[in-house]
Amino acid sequence: MKPFEDMHPSEIRKQIREQKITGTTAGMAKGYTQANLVILKKQDAFDFLLFCQRNPKPCPLLDVTEPGNYHPVKLAKHGDIRTDLPKYRIYRDGVLIKETTQIIDEWEDDMVGFLIGCSFTFEGSLIENGIPIRHIDENSNVPMYKTNILCEKAGLFEGPLVVSMRPMTYKNAIRSIQITSRFPSVHGAPIHIGDPSEIGIVDLNSPDFGDAVPMKEDEIPVFWACGVTPQAVALQSKPTIMITHAPGHMFISDVRDENYSIL
Amino acid sequence: MKPFEDMHPSEIRKQIREQKITGTTAGMAKGYTQANLVILKKQDAFDFLLFCQRNPKPCPLLDVTEPGNYHPVKLAKHGDIRTDLPKYRIYRDGVLIKETTQIIDEWEDDMVGFLIGCSFTFEGSLIENGIPIRHIDENSNVPMYKTNILCEKAGLFEGPLVVSMRPMTYKNAIRSIQITSRFPSVHGAPIHIGDPSEIGIVDLNSPDFGDAVPMKEDEIPVFWACGVTPQAVALQSKPTIMITHAPGHMFISDVRDENYSIL
Repeated sequence: MKPFEDMHPSEIRKQIREQKITGTTAGMAKGYTQANLVILKKQDAFDFLLFCQRNPKPCPLLDVTEPGNYHPVKLAKHGDIRTDLPKYRIYRDGVLIKETTQIIDEWEDDMVGFLIGCSFTFEGSLIENGIPIRHIDENSNVPMYKTNILCEKAGLFEGPLVVSMRPMTYKNAIRSIQITSRFPSVHGAPIHIGDPSEIGIVDLNSPDFGDAVPMKEDEIPVFWACGVTPQAVALQSKPTIMITHAPGHMFISDVRDENYSIL
Repeated sequence: MKPFEDMHPSEIRKQIREQKITGTTAGMAKGYTQANLVILKKQDAFDFLLFCQRNPKPCPLLDVTEPGNYHPVKLAKHGDIRTDLPKYRIYRDGVLIKETTQIIDEWEDDMVGFLIGCSFTFEGSLIENGIPIRHIDENSNVPMYKTNILCEKAGLFEGPLVVSMRPMTYKNAIRSIQITSRFPSVHGAPIHIGDPSEIGIVDLNSPDFGDAVPMKEDEIPVFWACGVTPQAVALQSKPTIMITHAPGHMFISDVRDENYSIL
């Protein structure tokens, strides 16, 4: 059993807040939804909210906080997005200036937090269904690729769709389409299966983010819209300040993954 | 055959723009999605967008226009929300001041249009499945009720969930849950079946909006979140100006209903 797998999210968040937990959150609080975080100032928030609304597959919004309010009430009433993630990244004018374990000093009273669904949710369901996930078995990061598919622009925010890839047998590819279709609010069904060049990916062995995973003889690549997309797009617009989770250091919510299944 | 049932949406929008069509749009352009419209100024748009994001069942956003842009590009690239609906209502400070057939003179360059899914989409699918819809058979409006369920508040916007009700046999109730679950982005599955008092409805024969429909012996009421909710909530906040469609006079999009099914 992985550490913290059976611990309640509120207890894990407390230990994170006290900086007893500082590592990645993968595998913690099994069955509970984890979320990506993007924090922007109010002046950028409307356009970013619109971007997410227009691009729901890569940007599934699970919660958006009121300007200045750091409690993500839909995901965890007593949670605090300034302290409850193990590691943050702070960007000024599009440049990473530091990583830190909490952002109380950086928080401003017109900041808006966007909590965005992540593939941990549907991966849990795939595993429950006996479908092996290569990068988890290899203890590496999922491979992610920029595609030639452009997101729908909103205000300043524009850029290519980023996808994650999981190799599957044909049989498991079909089953994984069924399973992830049940979760439209956390990326949903794949956006592509098969030939990577169709979506502008030249070499599966050279992902733009994460780690390459080997493909077996009887497998095809299956591609899902990826939550890295909104961060990448937001950065391109060089906002005065933007704060995000550090990769893999997510917000653990009080909501169960199954709450996001529609069937 | 109803008039305009087989006409393409772009042709119907043209006839509306030329004021050759001025009535309700129910039954027109069969198989194509129709949408509710709410127009607000930019200053209110962030909170309203947040309200919709927090309450996706009553407020399924199909398209949101950029401030000042009157083309709903996701729904109909060449559509114009100032002219392409047969009738509009203009409210100032929460008070209805007039109904009109186009709003070119009222349009301001910081206005944002919200196009919100409507139950016509899933009713089409219910009918295709042989499930009778009482208010359609009786040629009346669907009965709608305010409930004791509060929407998630966002900024100024708050209020009760409004639901629409369709009587169903138990068998059809089950099938209708399956069918509407396929359409999470146009209200999705019912929010309640059975005893109306559970959600604060005192008398099914006295709907708050629309017309009462008779219940038969072997039927139960089935309740869906209703697109009247966001309009009612927006009005309560008394925005300086708000423009909506007149009831039943919807925007007819170029997108097919089946595009919104996830399975």
